[in-house]
Amino acid sequence: MDEYAKLSINQITTRDQWSLAEAITGYGRHGIHAISVWRDKLLELGIREGARMLSDAGMTVTGYCVGGLLSARDDAVFQERLEDNRRMIEEASTIGAECLVLIAGGIEEGSRDIDGARERAKEGLALLLPDARAAGIIIGLEPLHPMVCSLRSVLTTLEMANDWCEELGAGDELGIAVDVYNVWWDPNLAREIARAGNRICAFHVSDWLADTRDLRFDRGMMGDGVIDIEKIREMVETAGYAGYSEVEIFSERNWWRKNPDDVVETVKDRYRRYV
Amino acid sequence: MDEYAKLSINQITTRDQWSLAEAITGYGRHGIHAISVWRDKLLELGIREGARMLSDAGMTVTGYCVGGLLSARDDAVFQERLEDNRRMIEEASTIGAECLVLIAGGIEEGSRDIDGARERAKEGLALLLPDARAAGIIIGLEPLHPMVCSLRSVLTTLEMANDWCEELGAGDELGIAVDVYNVWWDPNLAREIARAGNRICAFHVSDWLADTRDLRFDRGMMGDGVIDIEKIREMVETAGYAGYSEVEIFSERNWWRKNPDDVVETVKDRYRRYV
Repeated sequence: MDEYAKLSINQITTRDQWSLAEAITGYGRHGIHAISVWRDKLLELGIREGARMLSDAGMTVTGYCVGGLLSARDDAVFQERLEDNRRMIEEASTIGAECLVLIAGGIEEGSRDIDGARERAKEGLALLLPDARAAGIIIGLEPLHPMVCSLRSVLTTLEMANDWCEELGAGDELGIAVDVYNVWWDPNLAREIARAGNRICAFHVSDWLADTRDLRFDRGMMGDGVIDIEKIREMVETAGYAGYSEVEIFSERNWWRKNPDDVVETVKDRYRRYV
Repeated sequence: MDEYAKLSINQITTRDQWSLAEAITGYGRHGIHAISVWRDKLLELGIREGARMLSDAGMTVTGYCVGGLLSARDDAVFQERLEDNRRMIEEASTIGAECLVLIAGGIEEGSRDIDGARERAKEGLALLLPDARAAGIIIGLEPLHPMVCSLRSVLTTLEMANDWCEELGAGDELGIAVDVYNVWWDPNLAREIARAGNRICAFHVSDWLADTRDLRFDRGMMGDGVIDIEKIREMVETAGYAGYSEVEIFSERNWWRKNPDDVVETVKDRYRRYV
């Protein structure tokens, strides 16, 4: 039994060191056969070439990042975002991704209308569901941490993600991505993971550093922070999730500066001990 | 009618510029007759002298900051914190504060037990209620933003604050402090403010800056960010709150560097326009 059979690495974890081609060969060299892909890295390599390399390397693509950002009031901007998301659904399909990770979007400059932004993002999500269904792609709706509510996601809790799934009456084309970094603080975490149940289509791990310095790019390696990751993994598994644990670490001060081979070996070590 | 009759300034807003004595005279000079007091500033001046100056100036003391930090596992540390909180209840009584603002405390170094920290903090709160009741002091339980869950407060939502109040079966000695900066992102905000009802004993205002750079000390002046403060003020008033709006701005990059008289004038201007 390969002890890393359910370990995926989100390539953002080696964002500053490796291109997509380098990540595919680099992760593979260390015995990791699952990856989550970012769009800018894929476009840099070329969609067809990326799809071919991922397939040739036998890589499972656990996610394609990141769609959404649908909270714009301006209709032209909103329509442009919808079209861009439709292209991402096609791209996700081309590379065989298990899901397109989607975040709601934040609050536009000059606006204070959080309710309006939420309604708009939900409306945009509803409009994308038929495209996802047609392409056979699961949209992985990911609530982000409330500290990026203004910047990135007015969808701030798992409860609200569950509410949206119910309100939209979506089928299998709509899933929920649970990222421990975004949800670990939530008093309703256990309840809402159980409620999400089989909708959970991705499980992202990293850690919250006690001395966190940045709202987006200062995540910690598993074991370096305060999150009881194993406990949350047990919650998602009890809810029915049997997929990968995907390591997703944004880290300007630390992991993006290190030798990427060392990063991958550290990921493997910490995965064994803390996930 | 004095248009600033319900405006209070938390002295943290001029933390780096003014001592307590200077804040009392400074705020008063600008026609502000309510203040929230921090302990280190009070002890610097002396408790008796501070109480005398506040009284002589006719200042309403809307809060005394900040008690709590009760989440320690170690019994000796926990007991020491309880004793310190009891002293703060006495101090709050001496200066005639409307409430002692209490935060739960974070997660100790080396721990990943958020549930345990929450239970401990609630236990500590329960042990302080008789002291508050005896002293005639309201404890203002304040949930903080989830981004300081690890550092300062495992109590991360208004819902959980309401739950604690109910579970403890507390009387009037336990209130809830609503700070827009901590709760504005919460999908359950309206419901939980209504539920808090007459327990709301303080209302703190500031703004969330779109380009927030720090987890604690980068709050914005009302009007400079994304929070619809008026809407939240209407919620607390509908819930039954008729007290002060207290401006509480931690701002290393901006307001702590400015001339304090200008800060107070800006507070007044923004209060009129955005609160």
